[in-house]
Amino acid sequence: MHTATAPVLDPSADIVDLTAAIVDIESVSGNEAMLADAVEAALRGHAEHLEVIRDGDTVIARTHRGLDRRVLLAGHLDTVPLAGNLPSVRRTREGREELAGRGTCDMKGGVAVFLKLAVEADAAPVDLTWVFYDHEEVAAADNSLTRLAAERPELLAADFAILGEPTSAGVEGGCKGTMKLEVTTRGIAAHSARDWVGENAIHHLAPVLERLAAYEARRAVIDALEYRECLNVVEISGGIAGNVIPDRASALVNYRFAPDTSVEQAEAHVREVLTGLDLEITITDSSPGALPGLGDPAARDFLAALGEGVSVAAKQGWTDVARFAALGTPAVNFGPGDALLAHTDDEHVPLEDLRRSLEALRRWLAVTPR
Amino acid sequence: MHTATAPVLDPSADIVDLTAAIVDIESVSGNEAMLADAVEAALRGHAEHLEVIRDGDTVIARTHRGLDRRVLLAGHLDTVPLAGNLPSVRRTREGREELAGRGTCDMKGGVAVFLKLAVEADAAPVDLTWVFYDHEEVAAADNSLTRLAAERPELLAADFAILGEPTSAGVEGGCKGTMKLEVTTRGIAAHSARDWVGENAIHHLAPVLERLAAYEARRAVIDALEYRECLNVVEISGGIAGNVIPDRASALVNYRFAPDTSVEQAEAHVREVLTGLDLEITITDSSPGALPGLGDPAARDFLAALGEGVSVAAKQGWTDVARFAALGTPAVNFGPGDALLAHTDDEHVPLEDLRRSLEALRRWLAVTPR
Repeated sequence: MHTATAPVLDPSADIVDLTAAIVDIESVSGNEAMLADAVEAALRGHAEHLEVIRDGDTVIARTHRGLDRRVLLAGHLDTVPLAGNLPSVRRTREGREELAGRGTCDMKGGVAVFLKLAVEADAAPVDLTWVFYDHEEVAAADNSLTRLAAERPELLAADFAILGEPTSAGVEGGCKGTMKLEVTTRGIAAHSARDWVGENAIHHLAPVLERLAAYEARRAVIDALEYRECLNVVEISGGIAGNVIPDRASALVNYRFAPDTSVEQAEAHVREVLTGLDLEITITDSSPGALPGLGDPAARDFLAALGEGVSVAAKQGWTDVARFAALGTPAVNFGPGDALLAHTDDEHVPLEDLRRSLEALRRWLAVTPR
Repeated sequence: MHTATAPVLDPSADIVDLTAAIVDIESVSGNEAMLADAVEAALRGHAEHLEVIRDGDTVIARTHRGLDRRVLLAGHLDTVPLAGNLPSVRRTREGREELAGRGTCDMKGGVAVFLKLAVEADAAPVDLTWVFYDHEEVAAADNSLTRLAAERPELLAADFAILGEPTSAGVEGGCKGTMKLEVTTRGIAAHSARDWVGENAIHHLAPVLERLAAYEARRAVIDALEYRECLNVVEISGGIAGNVIPDRASALVNYRFAPDTSVEQAEAHVREVLTGLDLEITITDSSPGALPGLGDPAARDFLAALGEGVSVAAKQGWTDVARFAALGTPAVNFGPGDALLAHTDDEHVPLEDLRRSLEALRRWLAVTPR
């Protein structure tokens, strides 16, 4: 007879041990149930000040202390697929202590810090909503925040939100928007030994590449944070055979635009950059950015509590903070780990990041280490 | 019990019936044996003036009349794969009689004309070598002419060669050379929201497309024939994912160069066109062209016998005439059918082309229709 033992998480454990325990419960997107169970059990068993709600594989925990403001802290439980990098390994490299393995950086370090604080922070200056959610590393439609925003938006209501994505324990405000556009040129197919009876669709892409290569991207400064826009061809394709003049070619353009720009304005801008060229432009994907909202009182209190030792910068990549922005909630990213290591085979988190982010949030949430 | 009946070809049949009979023996590259058997049997059974040699699925027939000059006439037996277009159909379209089906144009019309003439031409002004060969529509290494040129070059020895490829029953002299070059650019991969830490390899292709789009190709006039060069990107590719700045992109360039230009000169020219750009160029394929050699006495006699009603032009596409040029034998293309219909689903040959090419060659070979 086989008895499965459900893993148990102890929120009072050292932050490194707690992170390792969370990392070692494999939870590739779609397989978050066991970790969600463990998080739910830890919250129910150790934090009487919290209302705990289970929705699918998302666990939500809230204080109801009647305070003026509510801050939401969210971290996703899932990871991208493994690369033979579980269980986690604690190591020292070039004099630095690290925890390595899938999810250590993106973003179980942040989940561990939030889980620990959810239990500890029973006297914070604001009411708190903790969200541990599933399906972030897959299509937006499957992301649990999409479902919750549509079906139970009251659970996500807050004055300010903090997403535990890796920022090397600095604050990264808002995020840029992103848009993908398929640019297609047409020509007339012909044998490549008689090109004068045809028209080369690949050659028609020349001015597209030329304009984008010469493009000088805008740097938008918002709340003293600099968002650098990016406009690039990220994929290009065309060709029928080695002896044929192709009648179709296409370039996939990715525009990362500052959060003061709407999706409509972003589209208009790309069309303006490519104006006068004979081509078709189709938007295949778009998501608005998120303004940092650092002027919001809840954000100001948060930043003031963290102190001057914590860096504040713009988030360049798109993250789920944009979902909160869409709900009218200003949001920042704040978590341990270097975002550039996310999804890599050598994913790891410096132990110092775990400790610094925990201590910074403890200052803000008026938690005395126990 | 099943008895396979080997198909029989009657070279004395009407040229249209003979073409249809040859077309209806399916002979997609690699499956030429049955057609080669039928051609060999027809030659052995109807032409005592010929020495008949079988080499693999190639059939060679030669006269040995001790004449000053020898002319070789070659046609390939194979076709590209079928498109539901066999057996052949005789039809009238827009008032024009046609034979439609795979191989009618490329190039069983020419094979039929050559087979008929091989039997008829027992008193020609030159010695004749007829070559019916296999594996033309596939890789050059598998082409039987490659094997024969290496192993039995004496069988291909001639003062002048005529290839029965479709030319709408006009003479198309020589052919252009062809070269394919892979042009690769390198960059530095990065997240597309932080392009300033990367370098977009696709954008580096901009000047390649720009120069080739603006390129004015040379028109070389040789023996009064105009060869129009062509320089094109025929395939382009690059891209890792929609959110990544790619570190590699490539363009496949096809250069079709006049036959007065060597492969080395062609390569040097492309490198000059792309000079000063940061890229790698690798030649993936090259074949020299063939000079028309229309000044050769055997060619002059041939053209004179055809008369003024037969058009003479440059062959733009590469054909096996270049193999004869490489053996030192000037060569032209002459055969029924429009080359633009080769390999198409609607492949067909005008009956008038079959008759005109047969009659033209009969004039030259001093054949009285029987």
